[in-house]
Amino acid sequence: MQTTNTASTTSVLRVMNERAVFAETFRLGTVSRPELAQQTGLSKPTVAVALTNLERAGLLRRVGTRAGAAGRSAMLYEVRPEAGWVFAVDVGRSYVRVGLADLVGTIVARKDEPSRGTRARDLVAQLTRLAEELAGQAGITRDDVTLAVFGTPGIHDKATGALHLAPNLPGWDRRGSVERLAGIAGSTYVVENDVDLAAVGEATYGLGRGVRHFVYVSIGTGTGMGIIIDGRLYRGFRGAAGEIGYLPIGEGDPLLEQPAARPRGMFESVASADGIVGVARRLGLPGAVTAKDVFDAARAGEETARLAVSREVDHVSHALAGITAVLDPELVVLGGGVGSQLGDLFTSPLTERLRTLVALRPPRIEVSTLGPDAVLLGALAVGLAEARTLVLDRTAPTR
Amino acid sequence: MQTTNTASTTSVLRVMNERAVFAETFRLGTVSRPELAQQTGLSKPTVAVALTNLERAGLLRRVGTRAGAAGRSAMLYEVRPEAGWVFAVDVGRSYVRVGLADLVGTIVARKDEPSRGTRARDLVAQLTRLAEELAGQAGITRDDVTLAVFGTPGIHDKATGALHLAPNLPGWDRRGSVERLAGIAGSTYVVENDVDLAAVGEATYGLGRGVRHFVYVSIGTGTGMGIIIDGRLYRGFRGAAGEIGYLPIGEGDPLLEQPAARPRGMFESVASADGIVGVARRLGLPGAVTAKDVFDAARAGEETARLAVSREVDHVSHALAGITAVLDPELVVLGGGVGSQLGDLFTSPLTERLRTLVALRPPRIEVSTLGPDAVLLGALAVGLAEARTLVLDRTAPTR
Repeated sequence: MQTTNTASTTSVLRVMNERAVFAETFRLGTVSRPELAQQTGLSKPTVAVALTNLERAGLLRRVGTRAGAAGRSAMLYEVRPEAGWVFAVDVGRSYVRVGLADLVGTIVARKDEPSRGTRARDLVAQLTRLAEELAGQAGITRDDVTLAVFGTPGIHDKATGALHLAPNLPGWDRRGSVERLAGIAGSTYVVENDVDLAAVGEATYGLGRGVRHFVYVSIGTGTGMGIIIDGRLYRGFRGAAGEIGYLPIGEGDPLLEQPAARPRGMFESVASADGIVGVARRLGLPGAVTAKDVFDAARAGEETARLAVSREVDHVSHALAGITAVLDPELVVLGGGVGSQLGDLFTSPLTERLRTLVALRPPRIEVSTLGPDAVLLGALAVGLAEARTLVLDRTAPTR
Repeated sequence: MQTTNTASTTSVLRVMNERAVFAETFRLGTVSRPELAQQTGLSKPTVAVALTNLERAGLLRRVGTRAGAAGRSAMLYEVRPEAGWVFAVDVGRSYVRVGLADLVGTIVARKDEPSRGTRARDLVAQLTRLAEELAGQAGITRDDVTLAVFGTPGIHDKATGALHLAPNLPGWDRRGSVERLAGIAGSTYVVENDVDLAAVGEATYGLGRGVRHFVYVSIGTGTGMGIIIDGRLYRGFRGAAGEIGYLPIGEGDPLLEQPAARPRGMFESVASADGIVGVARRLGLPGAVTAKDVFDAARAGEETARLAVSREVDHVSHALAGITAVLDPELVVLGGGVGSQLGDLFTSPLTERLRTLVALRPPRIEVSTLGPDAVLLGALAVGLAEARTLVLDRTAPTR
C-alpha cells in the first residue's frame, strides 16, 4: 500500500520526517500537531502526513483534543503502547528475572524464579516457558514481542556466538551457543553483559541519572563493573572493560596460583561472596556459610566476623583505588549481594580507607537503589531504545 | 566593514557557511569552488561569497587554477598558513621543548633546552624568551601567536588556576599560578596534562592513528597515562583519569607508608626512574645512579641488574593488568624514559607476564615512535584544532 505524498516529499525524506515526529512524540508524551511542528522544525502539512502514516501503521493514536488559542482545539497524539513489546531478561546465577514491557516502558508482566539449570537447553526451556506465561498475561503471543534483551554473565562474542568468561554458565562458551536464545521471543534479540546492563539501568532509572561519568561495581557471587562515560556504556575493545575480577589486588598472580581451577581473577577470588566466606573461615569464624552470615555476625558485633568484613573493606577499597586511578569517576554505585551489604553498613569505612589510596578526594560511593532489578531495568532501557527503531523499520515496507 | 550579502543570507548563516567552507578547505588542502560546493552541500554562489570573505580576512588564498571540463579552468584555494600561529610547549621536568607552527601545522621554529628552574617566575621567564626567539625566527611577534598550548605535569584546576599533583613544579599548586602563563604568547592559552597531550599526539601523528580505544602509558621521572576513547581524550570527572602513579600495585598503602613525604602513589614509587634505581640498589647493584645505568647493566648481562629489570617488568605488568581489567584497550603505547627502554628490550617478557594476569589475550604493547616529541606534538594537535576556530572568531567582528 502506497501512501499519498506531497509532491516534494521523497520516500527517504518521508521516513526521516516520520522518525522525527515519532521520536518527539516519545519524548513529549502527549502532543499536538502544532507542538510537533515547532519541536521538529517541520511544516504543519508535513507533520500531518507523518501523523497520518504513523497512525495508520498503528504506532501512534489519538487521545482527544486540547483547547487552543482563539477557541480552536488541537487533536492530541501519543505513542500506542501496544505498538511494540520488549522482553527483558536477567539470566542470573541463581535466579532468572523476566519482564515484559510495552513500547512506552510500562512493565505489564513480571516474574522472578530460581534458575532451573545453567545448561543451555534447560535455561532456554525455562525462559521460553516464562516468555509464554508473560505474553499470555499481556494478551499477546511470543511472536508479537519486538525485541528480547538478555543480560548474562560474561562477554558475548558476536563473531562466534559464544559466551566467554562466564564460568557459571557451563557450555555457553561453545560456538553458536548464544543463538539458542533466538527462539525465545520474537525474532530479534540482544545479549549484553549483565553488569553492563545494570550500569545502563542506573544511568536510566537509578543513581546515575544525569551523572556524566560513573561506574556500577557489582560484588556478589562474582564481581564486575559497568562503565558509563559521557552518559553511554563503554564496553572496551573486546567487550571486556570492567572485568574487575582480574584486578591484581594483593599479592601473587591470580591465574598462576590456581592453574587447574576455573579462571578467577585476583579481586574476585578474595572479594566475592565465596571470597569473604573463605576469609572468615580462615580467620576462624564458625558456621559461616554465606556472605550474609558473615555480615550478620559482624553487625551483631562478633569480632572475627568484623575482622573478615574489615578485610573485605580493604580489598574493595584497593579495587576502587585502582578504578579511580584509571577512570576518575564522579560516582561509584555499589550493587550485588556483597556490594549492597558492604555499602549499607560500611560506606564510611570504605571512603575513609579509599582516602589514603587516591590522588584527590575519593569519588562518591552509594548503594544502588535499584537493587536486584538493576540488570532487568537496564535490559528494558536498552530494549526500549532499540524497539522504537525496530517498530518503524518493520512497518515501513508494508506501507 | 560590512560585506555584501545575498538577500537570503543572514549573518548567522553566513558565519556557518564560512565555517563549513574553511573546514573543508582544511580537510582537502587545495580545492576549487565546485569541489567546495559539492562537499559542503552549499550552492556555488554561497560558496563564492564565503570564499571572498575568507580571502579578504586573510584566512584563505588563491593558488592558481586547474583545467576543468570543457576547457573551463577552476580557481584553486588553500588555507593561508600565516593566518594563525600555534605555540606548543612541553614543560618537562628537566627539559622544556617548544615549537611554533603555522595554521596548517608546519613547525617553522623549534627549540629544546634544559629547564632553567621549576619556580613559576623562572619558568615563565625562560618560556617568554623562547617564545620571543621562535617568533623572531618565523618573522612574527609573540602577539601574533593565535594560541599557546602548554603540556605540564599534574592537573590544571580551571576553577582556581592552580596545578594539582605536580610535585615537580613546586609552588604551582597556589591559586592563580597558572595564569602567569598568559603573557608568554598571544592572549589565549590552554594548559593540559602532559601525558594526556602525549596520548593526543599518538592519536594524531603516532601509533594511535585509527585506533578507537588505546592508552599511552608514560614511565619516567614520574608515571602517568593518557586515555583515548572513541578517538577522543578522556579526562575523567576532575581531570584525574590515568593518574596511574596511584595504582595500588604490591603490598601496603602508598600514602600511609610515606605520610611526611610528598604524595607519590604506589606504582609511581616502585616503577618510576627513582623506583627502579632504588630497587637495583636494594638488590645490591653498585654504581646505579640512573634508570639507564640499570638497563645498560641488564643489557650487558649483569645479574643483579637483570633481577631489578625483572622486578620492573613485574610492577609494570601488574599495572597494565589493572588498566586492562578496567579499560580493555586495543593498544598500550609505552613512552617515557623507562617505558621506552623497557619496551624496546622487554616487550616480550612484559606480554608473557601480562598473559598470566588478564582475562583475555593481553592488549598489543608497542613503544612510542614519537619518543620525547609526543607531548609537543599533542600540544600542536590540540592547538591547531582550536586555532582554526579562533582565527574565524577573531576576524568575524572586524568584517
